[in-house]
Amino acid sequence: MKKLINSPENVVKDALDGMAAAHPDLIKVSYDPDYIVRADGPISGKVGVISGGGSGHEPMHGGFVGRGMLDAACPGAVFTSPVPDQMLAATKAVNGGAGVLHIVKNYTGDVMNFEMAAELGAAEGIEVASVVTNDDVAVQDSLYTAGRRGVGVTVLLEKIVGAAAEAKAPLAEVKRIAEKVNAHGRSMGMALTSCTVPHAGKPTFELPEDEMEIGVGIHGEPGRRRVKIASAAEIAEMLTTPILEDLPFSPGDNVLAFVNGMGGTPQIELYLMYNELVKILNGRGITVARNLIGSYITSLEMAGCSITLVKLDDELTGLWDAPVLTPALRWGL
Amino acid sequence: MKKLINSPENVVKDALDGMAAAHPDLIKVSYDPDYIVRADGPISGKVGVISGGGSGHEPMHGGFVGRGMLDAACPGAVFTSPVPDQMLAATKAVNGGAGVLHIVKNYTGDVMNFEMAAELGAAEGIEVASVVTNDDVAVQDSLYTAGRRGVGVTVLLEKIVGAAAEAKAPLAEVKRIAEKVNAHGRSMGMALTSCTVPHAGKPTFELPEDEMEIGVGIHGEPGRRRVKIASAAEIAEMLTTPILEDLPFSPGDNVLAFVNGMGGTPQIELYLMYNELVKILNGRGITVARNLIGSYITSLEMAGCSITLVKLDDELTGLWDAPVLTPALRWGL
Repeated sequence: MKKLINSPENVVKDALDGMAAAHPDLIKVSYDPDYIVRADGPISGKVGVISGGGSGHEPMHGGFVGRGMLDAACPGAVFTSPVPDQMLAATKAVNGGAGVLHIVKNYTGDVMNFEMAAELGAAEGIEVASVVTNDDVAVQDSLYTAGRRGVGVTVLLEKIVGAAAEAKAPLAEVKRIAEKVNAHGRSMGMALTSCTVPHAGKPTFELPEDEMEIGVGIHGEPGRRRVKIASAAEIAEMLTTPILEDLPFSPGDNVLAFVNGMGGTPQIELYLMYNELVKILNGRGITVARNLIGSYITSLEMAGCSITLVKLDDELTGLWDAPVLTPALRWGL
Repeated sequence: MKKLINSPENVVKDALDGMAAAHPDLIKVSYDPDYIVRADGPISGKVGVISGGGSGHEPMHGGFVGRGMLDAACPGAVFTSPVPDQMLAATKAVNGGAGVLHIVKNYTGDVMNFEMAAELGAAEGIEVASVVTNDDVAVQDSLYTAGRRGVGVTVLLEKIVGAAAEAKAPLAEVKRIAEKVNAHGRSMGMALTSCTVPHAGKPTFELPEDEMEIGVGIHGEPGRRRVKIASAAEIAEMLTTPILEDLPFSPGDNVLAFVNGMGGTPQIELYLMYNELVKILNGRGITVARNLIGSYITSLEMAGCSITLVKLDDELTGLWDAPVLTPALRWGL
C-alpha cells in the first residue's frame, strides 16, 4: 500500500489537523466528536447547512465549509458513515436560531445516522430539515444503498443551497431549493483503477489492466458493467447518454456540467473529458451554461471520472454564481 | 496504459479544446502555434508575463493564465519543450508596449527555445526579459538540465510576479521580483509511483511496490535515492531538511509553504503532509505565513508530492495576497 500517511488509524485525524493548520481564517476543527465548522459561525438568523459522510472523498465535505457553502461537515472514518454524535454536535454548533439543514448522501448508514441526529437536535429545540441526494443513475440499489447513491450532485447542491442560506433564506426555502437541485441533477462515474482503504491495506476491487468499470460507486461499489478500455469520446458517451435519458434532459436546456476526477486522475484528462462532454451536449442542443472541472468528490487515489449534469434555471444559476469562500471552492470573494 | 484520452497524438490538442470551452471568460487558445492567452489581453502599458513548458504538468502553466498571473502560456507536447514559434507568437500577442517577461523552468530545451524566442521578439522591437527558475535541491545536474531543475517555485513565482505586472510595475522591476522569488525559494519532490507518457505507452520508470523515489524530477527523472516506503512524518523530513539547509531558512523566517500533489495523489494525503511540514517548521522556529496545498505542478498521474518553501517579506506577501483570477487559482475576484 503506497500512501502518504503515518498509520491507517491516524489518517483522518492527521488530515484534519492539516486542514485546521492550513485554513484558520475559514474553518475550525473540533475533535471527539469530530467536525469542521465555519470559523465565523454560528451566524444569527441564518439557516445552518451541514453535511458529512465517510472520509476519503476530499475535498468533499470539509473543503466546502466556509462562506456561501457549508456551515459544518462531519467526517467519518474512511468510507464509513460519521456517527450521530458528530452530526448532533455540528447541528448545535451551527444553530443560529433559523434551523439547520442536513445534506445527506443516500447511503444506508448516513441516512440512518443523520435521521437520529435530526431527532436528537429536534429534542433540543432545533428545527432540522433534511435532503437526501440520490443522483447516480448507474444502478437502482447498491452495496450500501436502498435506491440510488448520492454522488456528484451533492457537491453542486452544497454550493447552491449554501448560497441560499447565506442570503438568509428561511429553512423551508432552503430545503425546497435543495430538493430542486437533487431533482434536476443526474450523475454517473467510471473507474480505470481501484483504490485502497488504509485499514484494508489492499485494493477494494481488482480491475484487469485492459478493463474499466462503468457506473462505479464512490466507494468502489460495482457499476453497470466492466468493459475494455475505450477512448475518451466513447467513455463520455457511456456516461452521458444514461444521464440525459434518465431525467430526461432536452434540447434547449441549460445545464451546469461537472466533470469530476476520482482522486488519481490528472487534470489534463479531466479537461479532455470535458471537451468530449461539451461535444455531446452541443450535438443534442443542450447548452453548458456553467461548468466545474476538477477532483471534488473523490475515492482516495482511484483513477477515473464522473459526470454530473444539473438543469439550470435563473434561480439556480444565480445561486451558483453567488460568492463562495471555502478551502476548495472560492470565487467572488 | 489506462488514460482518459482519445489517442496519444491528440492529448494536448483535445485538452486545450476543453480548456477553451470551459473558460472563455478567462482565456483564449490559439493553435499552430499553440498558446493560451488572456481573454482580455493585451493590456496597454502592462508587462506581459508568459511561461510555457511541456504538457503533462497541468494546471501549470495554462491554468495560470488570467488576471493577476500569466498573460500567456505555451504548451509543448507531453514532457517536451514548446518551440520558439509558440513563444514568439505568445510574446507578440501579450505585448502591451511595456515589454514581456519570460518565465523559464531550467530544462535545456526550454532555456534554449525561450532564448531564441526572446531574440526573435527583440528583433521585432519587443523588449524581452527572462528569469530561469532552478529551485529543486534534489540534484545538481539532471537528465534534462545543466544545474538545478525548475519546479514548484515556478508556480508561486508566476502568481507573485503576475501581481506585480498587474499593478503595472515596469519590466526591470518585474524581473527583479522574479529573481527574488527564485532566490528565496527551494523545493524537493518524491514519487510513490511512476507515470506514463501517452506516446511511450509504458511507465517512465519502474518502482517496486515497497519503494519510493526521493528527489524525483517532474518528468520522472531520478532523484537522490530509492528507499523503502516510510511514514508521512519521515517523508516530510526527507524533503524539508535539504530545503531548509540549502537556502538556508532560519528561525524567525516567514515562509510561503506549498505542498504539491504530483497528479495522482488524493487531497487527504496532501493535507496530511502539510500537517507534518508545519510541525517541522514550527519546531525550527519558522512561521508559515501563507500556504498553498493542491496539485498545481504535476507529472501526469504520478503519485507523490513535493514541498516548496519561499521566504517571505512584506513585498512578496503583498503580491501573493493580491487578487488572482485564473482557471486554477482564484481569490479576491
